[in-house]
Amino acid sequence: MGRGVFITLEGADGCGKSTQAALVAEALAASGREVVRLREPGGTPISEKVRALLLDPANAEMVPECELLLYEASRAQLTRQVIEPAVARGAVVLCDRYYDSTYAYQAGGRELPDDLVNAANALGSCGAVPDRTLVFDLEPAVALARATAGGADRLEAEGLAFQERVRAAYLRLAASEPDRVRVVDASGEKDEVLARALDALGDLL
Amino acid sequence: MGRGVFITLEGADGCGKSTQAALVAEALAASGREVVRLREPGGTPISEKVRALLLDPANAEMVPECELLLYEASRAQLTRQVIEPAVARGAVVLCDRYYDSTYAYQAGGRELPDDLVNAANALGSCGAVPDRTLVFDLEPAVALARATAGGADRLEAEGLAFQERVRAAYLRLAASEPDRVRVVDASGEKDEVLARALDALGDLL
Repeated sequence: MGRGVFITLEGADGCGKSTQAALVAEALAASGREVVRLREPGGTPISEKVRALLLDPANAEMVPECELLLYEASRAQLTRQVIEPAVARGAVVLCDRYYDSTYAYQAGGRELPDDLVNAANALGSCGAVPDRTLVFDLEPAVALARATAGGADRLEAEGLAFQERVRAAYLRLAASEPDRVRVVDASGEKDEVLARALDALGDLL
Repeated sequence: MGRGVFITLEGADGCGKSTQAALVAEALAASGREVVRLREPGGTPISEKVRALLLDPANAEMVPECELLLYEASRAQLTRQVIEPAVARGAVVLCDRYYDSTYAYQAGGRELPDDLVNAANALGSCGAVPDRTLVFDLEPAVALARATAGGADRLEAEGLAFQERVRAAYLRLAASEPDRVRVVDASGEKDEVLARALDALGDLL
């Protein structure tokens, strides 16, 4: 069996990528592929424990460098334990967030130096590179309103200016790696967005 | 008030450095200095939570890259939240393990590539460099016997060959940074070792 496909789904909280992950997974499974759905941070018992540290509002004193390294630790475990074996056996891996989130949120949103974030991403991904990355793009005000409708967690409490910087960082990535990173218009009905997402994956599957 | 001093204490488990940390701290406090004693991983509430993940035998499936990044995350929080402010106000910081432990255990013991470990250390230390590092050196068989007398934790379960590689890595560091890293013979009575340690700090204090 040939090598599988590693796809990552990106975008601001509230952009609809988790809904799209489920719909894309369903479409791919219907074609007979093994589909492995993952969510970052998390996806292994150890990664989920790290996720709990990252998202706990009790840890508000966490410095940006610590936050960055915890994301990378969680990612390294997920990459080695789950993503690499799945791709090696021919599965399609659909991961909700991966290292582009770290770039968008830490270098973009939190304004850490690009070099620092890129070095951390190289360590945390253990050298893995997605075959395709879909950035679900939505006006930050719309995404933020959706994301905070049920109560804001620590990340969502950063506000609109933060989300604007996150979006700009995603768009820079798409401009610098156009073959890997594709922007998908996330406005409109779920089925419309799904059709755009599948279109952006068509050459790979 | 002038800048303080950042001292790190290193060596294999069982080398006696925790005992020496207490004795050195007592000697320095007797001279009227503010002394801040720390232990890695740990030293802040967030760092202690990361420590618990690292040392829990339930997490035995942890991959080396994840382990490395968790140590660095813990270190970044300790450095920014505690070490940098303490040194800035003029204190003597005595830290039981710091990034040289990561080099000795991950590059030496676990044989991860030096470049990878050095890049991780640069991130986790946030650029902080100890003014002096004491490596308490003891025959690995002696240190291991002491360290495992009360029951072995996950790190101590690696065995003698691992401890030999750790020691060799420490000695490489001392050879490559002779001004910062000093080897202290850790054999003999506590008071003899203390006298050697204080001698190796004399020019700084």
